[in-house]
Amino acid sequence: MTTTQSGPKAADFADVRATNLAVVLRCIRDRAPCSRADVATATGLNKATVSSLVADLIDRRLVRETGRTEHRIGRPATMLVLDGGGYAAIGIEIGTDSVAAVALDLAGVELVSWRRAFPRGSGQEKTQLRALATIAAKAVARVVEQGRQVLGLTVGVPGLVDPQGVVRLSTELGWRDLDLRGELRKALRSPTFDIGIDNAANLAALAEQRHGPHAGVANFVHVTADGAIAAGVVADGRLLRGARGFAGELAHLQLDPAGPQCRCGRRGCLQALAGVPAIVARALPDVDPDGDLSPEVELVVAQARRGDAPTLRALAEAGRHLGHGLSFLTNIVNPELVLLGGALAALAPWTAPAAEAELAARTLAPDAGGCRVVASALGPRATATGAAVGTLATLESGYLPVAAR
Amino acid sequence: MTTTQSGPKAADFADVRATNLAVVLRCIRDRAPCSRADVATATGLNKATVSSLVADLIDRRLVRETGRTEHRIGRPATMLVLDGGGYAAIGIEIGTDSVAAVALDLAGVELVSWRRAFPRGSGQEKTQLRALATIAAKAVARVVEQGRQVLGLTVGVPGLVDPQGVVRLSTELGWRDLDLRGELRKALRSPTFDIGIDNAANLAALAEQRHGPHAGVANFVHVTADGAIAAGVVADGRLLRGARGFAGELAHLQLDPAGPQCRCGRRGCLQALAGVPAIVARALPDVDPDGDLSPEVELVVAQARRGDAPTLRALAEAGRHLGHGLSFLTNIVNPELVLLGGALAALAPWTAPAAEAELAARTLAPDAGGCRVVASALGPRATATGAAVGTLATLESGYLPVAAR
Repeated sequence: MTTTQSGPKAADFADVRATNLAVVLRCIRDRAPCSRADVATATGLNKATVSSLVADLIDRRLVRETGRTEHRIGRPATMLVLDGGGYAAIGIEIGTDSVAAVALDLAGVELVSWRRAFPRGSGQEKTQLRALATIAAKAVARVVEQGRQVLGLTVGVPGLVDPQGVVRLSTELGWRDLDLRGELRKALRSPTFDIGIDNAANLAALAEQRHGPHAGVANFVHVTADGAIAAGVVADGRLLRGARGFAGELAHLQLDPAGPQCRCGRRGCLQALAGVPAIVARALPDVDPDGDLSPEVELVVAQARRGDAPTLRALAEAGRHLGHGLSFLTNIVNPELVLLGGALAALAPWTAPAAEAELAARTLAPDAGGCRVVASALGPRATATGAAVGTLATLESGYLPVAAR
Repeated sequence: MTTTQSGPKAADFADVRATNLAVVLRCIRDRAPCSRADVATATGLNKATVSSLVADLIDRRLVRETGRTEHRIGRPATMLVLDGGGYAAIGIEIGTDSVAAVALDLAGVELVSWRRAFPRGSGQEKTQLRALATIAAKAVARVVEQGRQVLGLTVGVPGLVDPQGVVRLSTELGWRDLDLRGELRKALRSPTFDIGIDNAANLAALAEQRHGPHAGVANFVHVTADGAIAAGVVADGRLLRGARGFAGELAHLQLDPAGPQCRCGRRGCLQALAGVPAIVARALPDVDPDGDLSPEVELVVAQARRGDAPTLRALAEAGRHLGHGLSFLTNIVNPELVLLGGALAALAPWTAPAAEAELAARTLAPDAGGCRVVASALGPRATATGAAVGTLATLESGYLPVAAR
């Protein structure tokens, strides 16, 4: 995904066949069961081209003939359906103190959903890599046992990841310039499938794009906050990556030069004012916010539900800071929706109204450019699901698995 | 360009033929003169499909046969070249106190480049619309006199423009909810060609994408400042528009709650700290910065060139504020390049170093995410050129003119 000098709508002539293969695949997914003639009508491709493309998809075990024929005028037609049984995509997500793996088949059905302990903190790279490799190898083994081919394995990391799969910086994990793709390839003994490393928020945004109530919205932002606050930005239906893959960084936007000290060394960053640890510290002054804060977040939610005034004040204040931080997104990328994910989803009933008000006040466009702030409905594992979904989506861009032997 | 609910990589099956027409058009542009067989080889489309597509392009007067044949083994082939002589695209830009029109042919050659007075300030809508309609009608007449068909006419406006061509807000022009497309259609008596209205910075970014030394860079930002400071953001080769077309708003990002009063009513906006009027006011304390500031900017440049210390301090301070404002862009969209356009281009030698230093300090990614801040080389009329270029670019997305009678 290197984008330097790719040019405006690059003319990838060699990719036309791949693109047309993907068009036919999407067409069959949307209309199955359907005949080759139906595909030709729907796509505008001529019948000879469609027959050749379908033969290719059958070779690759992505499409199969059902043998059923439709009753209608003329010769009976052989009907086509998706043949996803032979494949799976694996997604892995690094949480606060655990790592989770998910495997999906072509239709998005969950085949595997596991979790195991993962040590946080710097200086633990070896243990961390071992934990990742172990859960990855187990997920691969399970999928292969089921007679499926692994299409790809993607790991979501809270931090800046370059297109080569090197984690340039993760303040959460204490990683800097870690070649995670290379390390995992080694640990999994150079598998035939692709290994991808991506930013956790980007992957959660991909999950959002396919699943849940806002699937298909063209311009939205998914905000994760289980590590630092980060955004996966989808613009006009595509993930916004930027020149080096670092787009969507929110945690360390400075809101207030006189604000509280941030872990990054600066003051008044969004993370220091509206990150989950900051919210917990404000709502539960007696608790030391560190590690997995799920129990503390549940406690804050319980207090808010019963109308505890200091908790409500703390959440409204966090909401205002969140709205301030998000206003940079609304002014610069003009999303239709900001979806608060992870722990922020549970807190959204009390933070989102204040966030929306602040957003409207700080956005030049009337009505915050039409942007609403709502809780994501994805629940946990959004990143792992998105990691698998991303691999499935590459099929639709024409990156098809090699033909089965 | 409504993007709501368009879905991830929407499956526009009906557009496949249009897409393939555009692929063939781009292929001929890049390789002309070339034969139908060359096109088939380059695109992967089969020969029957290519012949049908080429016939269509010839009907539309976009491609013609040269009659030349190439000496090689086998039958001599008829060679194809672009036939752009029959078309022109018109771009119009609203400057501080003038309006400019440019017409380009398919190859990007300038056919017309005119300028006339344009009154600024609110309450002058009628006079403003008349000035726009007059220059537009003259440009159309000139192009038609030359025997060309007008492909489209686009007007660049400093402000928020929705996809229907309604200017939702232009603080510069005092416009709010002005249906500029509708008004121009009326004034030009419902012409057969499309009339487009777009944000000025977006159009300048399109010009940047095609012309000048950075053409083809996939992730960049063009910053205009002749009205308010605004960004045209190109991400992965495509203009970032957002849900309602309002992306790229920079002028009123608040950098300092205790900063100087801004025209928008808030304090410490980027515009109030680093807009051209603010720079002029700081460098030339005796001048009242209003209207067209080109003479004042030239004076500031002259003072900076001869090393005037207060001028250099004023420009370095503006550069720091600019870097602060741009840091939101680098964190959120991670561009490779920020190109300072309009009056900011002339001042860039003295503002860009300070802007880059501030950018690096305020961007989480190492090395400002790889972003450099440089002067745009486009010169004046970047927006008008981009407006015409945008119409030409739609050809390559498959929106072809109807076949000639």
